[in-house]
Amino acid sequence: MLEKRTPIPVSQAVEKVMKAATHSHSSEQVHITKAYRRILAEDLLAKHPVPPFDRTPYDGFAIHSDDSQNASRENPVTLRVIETIGAGSVCEQPVQRGEAVRIMTGAMLPPECDAIVMLELADTFTEADEDYMTIKRHFPSGHNLSYKGEDVSEGTMLIEKGTIINPGTVALLATFGYEYVSVTIKPTIGVFATGSELLEVEDELEPGKIRNSNTQMLLAQIERAGAEAVYFGKLPDEFESCYSQIKEAAVKVDILITTGGVSVGDFDLLPEVYDKLNADILFNKIAMRPGSVTTVATWNDTLMFGLSGNPSACYVGFEVFVRPIIKTRMLSSTPHLSKAKAILSEDFSKANPFTRFVRGTLSYQGHHLHAAPSGFNKSNAVSSLAKTDVFIVLPGGTRGYTKGDLVDILILDTEEGSEWPWESLSSSK
Amino acid sequence: MLEKRTPIPVSQAVEKVMKAATHSHSSEQVHITKAYRRILAEDLLAKHPVPPFDRTPYDGFAIHSDDSQNASRENPVTLRVIETIGAGSVCEQPVQRGEAVRIMTGAMLPPECDAIVMLELADTFTEADEDYMTIKRHFPSGHNLSYKGEDVSEGTMLIEKGTIINPGTVALLATFGYEYVSVTIKPTIGVFATGSELLEVEDELEPGKIRNSNTQMLLAQIERAGAEAVYFGKLPDEFESCYSQIKEAAVKVDILITTGGVSVGDFDLLPEVYDKLNADILFNKIAMRPGSVTTVATWNDTLMFGLSGNPSACYVGFEVFVRPIIKTRMLSSTPHLSKAKAILSEDFSKANPFTRFVRGTLSYQGHHLHAAPSGFNKSNAVSSLAKTDVFIVLPGGTRGYTKGDLVDILILDTEEGSEWPWESLSSSK
Repeated sequence: MLEKRTPIPVSQAVEKVMKAATHSHSSEQVHITKAYRRILAEDLLAKHPVPPFDRTPYDGFAIHSDDSQNASRENPVTLRVIETIGAGSVCEQPVQRGEAVRIMTGAMLPPECDAIVMLELADTFTEADEDYMTIKRHFPSGHNLSYKGEDVSEGTMLIEKGTIINPGTVALLATFGYEYVSVTIKPTIGVFATGSELLEVEDELEPGKIRNSNTQMLLAQIERAGAEAVYFGKLPDEFESCYSQIKEAAVKVDILITTGGVSVGDFDLLPEVYDKLNADILFNKIAMRPGSVTTVATWNDTLMFGLSGNPSACYVGFEVFVRPIIKTRMLSSTPHLSKAKAILSEDFSKANPFTRFVRGTLSYQGHHLHAAPSGFNKSNAVSSLAKTDVFIVLPGGTRGYTKGDLVDILILDTEEGSEWPWESLSSSK
Repeated sequence: MLEKRTPIPVSQAVEKVMKAATHSHSSEQVHITKAYRRILAEDLLAKHPVPPFDRTPYDGFAIHSDDSQNASRENPVTLRVIETIGAGSVCEQPVQRGEAVRIMTGAMLPPECDAIVMLELADTFTEADEDYMTIKRHFPSGHNLSYKGEDVSEGTMLIEKGTIINPGTVALLATFGYEYVSVTIKPTIGVFATGSELLEVEDELEPGKIRNSNTQMLLAQIERAGAEAVYFGKLPDEFESCYSQIKEAAVKVDILITTGGVSVGDFDLLPEVYDKLNADILFNKIAMRPGSVTTVATWNDTLMFGLSGNPSACYVGFEVFVRPIIKTRMLSSTPHLSKAKAILSEDFSKANPFTRFVRGTLSYQGHHLHAAPSGFNKSNAVSSLAKTDVFIVLPGGTRGYTKGDLVDILILDTEEGSEWPWESLSSSK
């Protein structure tokens, strides 16, 4: 039985998938030590000014600037040092005119003072058990001060929810006392392997068989996208148990991925499973290479992705269709792969009847982005994937490209994303 | 007591640190499901060709190409279909001239056949319980075949040791049957907080005090660099216990980081601790902003980093000096931050008496890299760090830069590194 499928353009396929994506507002609290790489579930606002008080960035003396008004080499001014303030301490007495306070880096400025003299610029001496310091120039008001709120003023919106937490964000969270942080719950992505030709990774090779590489690859892609993976094993090639296993798994996860078909002779069981589930098929063919045989269906709250069994096609399908759903559920406003342009570093002579996603390697030359196909680029290739950090996107209906051509790229290994990278890429009809 | 320190150029400081780095060849075996983001400890070689046999990329029929030699619309050729081979199965009988085999995507080509006819291009019929297929054109030898080894030939060097394992690498590992993978052991990095002005993240603010942001930030930076962090708490400000805590911790880790000084009055205890340990001080001041007050010492097999207590200075110090040691111990041949150039997107008017590391944000405009200072850029700033994904490196001895200028950048969030990014950056003397 030959099923006829009608391919739709990539941009339309992504649009359909995104419409089916539901924003999840579920969040959980994690300890700050577990926050790195999670996604903020609430906007991060400055709870207080930073620094929270006027302070000194240097070791030195806090003074009344007016006391230094007439100081010069010829007319040095001597002030009595009444106290020493270490970082974390506060001055215990009011500082009068003619007095100074020895102050350590990071310490709070006494409220009466308004300038800092760096240690190196003062001469010190002791007389009759009293400490003194002498200055030979004017230190204007505000000299060498770190003002309260100069870094961040109270209430400032610092980081938007939906942003991934990096080491700098962690520093901010600590600054504002977030011992626990509200982060988005990781969506759960189930994976089924399919294919009677597949051996497990621990098996010896047999004639006609290959080891299953898609499952382990997908588990890592899911982790990279920030979600939680659940592996459900290999689907049986018998309809009823295949149906019941898919149905059982689908209620446990947000997204369910199968790769390849489940064949009984000529016959792929999966369309029939979708049919019996009464799942809503969004599309089952896309005008793209690799990955044209990609099916997406919705069933209750679960999105079901039938990705190609070919490693490269499966890889691309995940990044283009599944990743943006994961990111959207985690509140990202830029859930798609980050889009840019690059100079093609070598010829790619194949014609492109459909939008083609060439697995490529990104490099910087000066301030220019360059991209090269990362090797053997058939849909069933696996070797090129390890060197892939971009997709070079060649629009359908174009001929071969040559070295030096400017091409669209989608960048994989970046925390940044794009809001909608598809406008100019969707020229395939 | 005013200690006089002599600053050395950044490139020289990095060089001294790198000379003290020891390559570690220790590795451990992890299950493939735990391999993502770890570092390969051995070269990944192709254990067998990929694909391991000639196979078909399409559903169709395997034939002797010579049988189709004279086939045409006017002169169709009919072949008897003797068997069906599913993916994972092998043909059970020799295929004679005049015979064809129904074959599924991914299945092994029968050894006598040398071309594949796609299903859509054959007419099929059954007569007297025998299956037949008819073709109307010539299918030359090799038509539609995926050849044994066309993706990877046996023995090919695929990925060098020292490379981070990405989802594509995982697919390769699975393909070649690596149930367990040899990866580099993560170096252990100890962290001590210092500073009597520091509150813990869970504490309420008090006058003159701020919360400790460096520790949590460093723990995340250590994780990002691929190492294992151990937090030893805050150092006491009493010499003997400070000394014994540092000594005790140093034998447990590969690298020990302190941030800020340990002050008793005017006096920083740390130089005295290094002295009593008889540690070898590589340098204690660098001609850079922020982070000029950075001390690096070696003691037995442990590298000891005294980073600045200022958040931005601490952040930069870690990435420039500690990260390359971590990467080197994990066998990377490009352990430094990845270097490129970028167009400055806004003015940076400060002069640069020393090499300056401006915390910046990277963006792509077309195929060009752009970088903008990410906000308030004083050494004690914390707000800008959350938006930092590059350092804009401005050489010492230069005046302000203006929008549109081409500047050196070091990229933080990339798995790629540089071998030695410092040649042209080391113009500060």
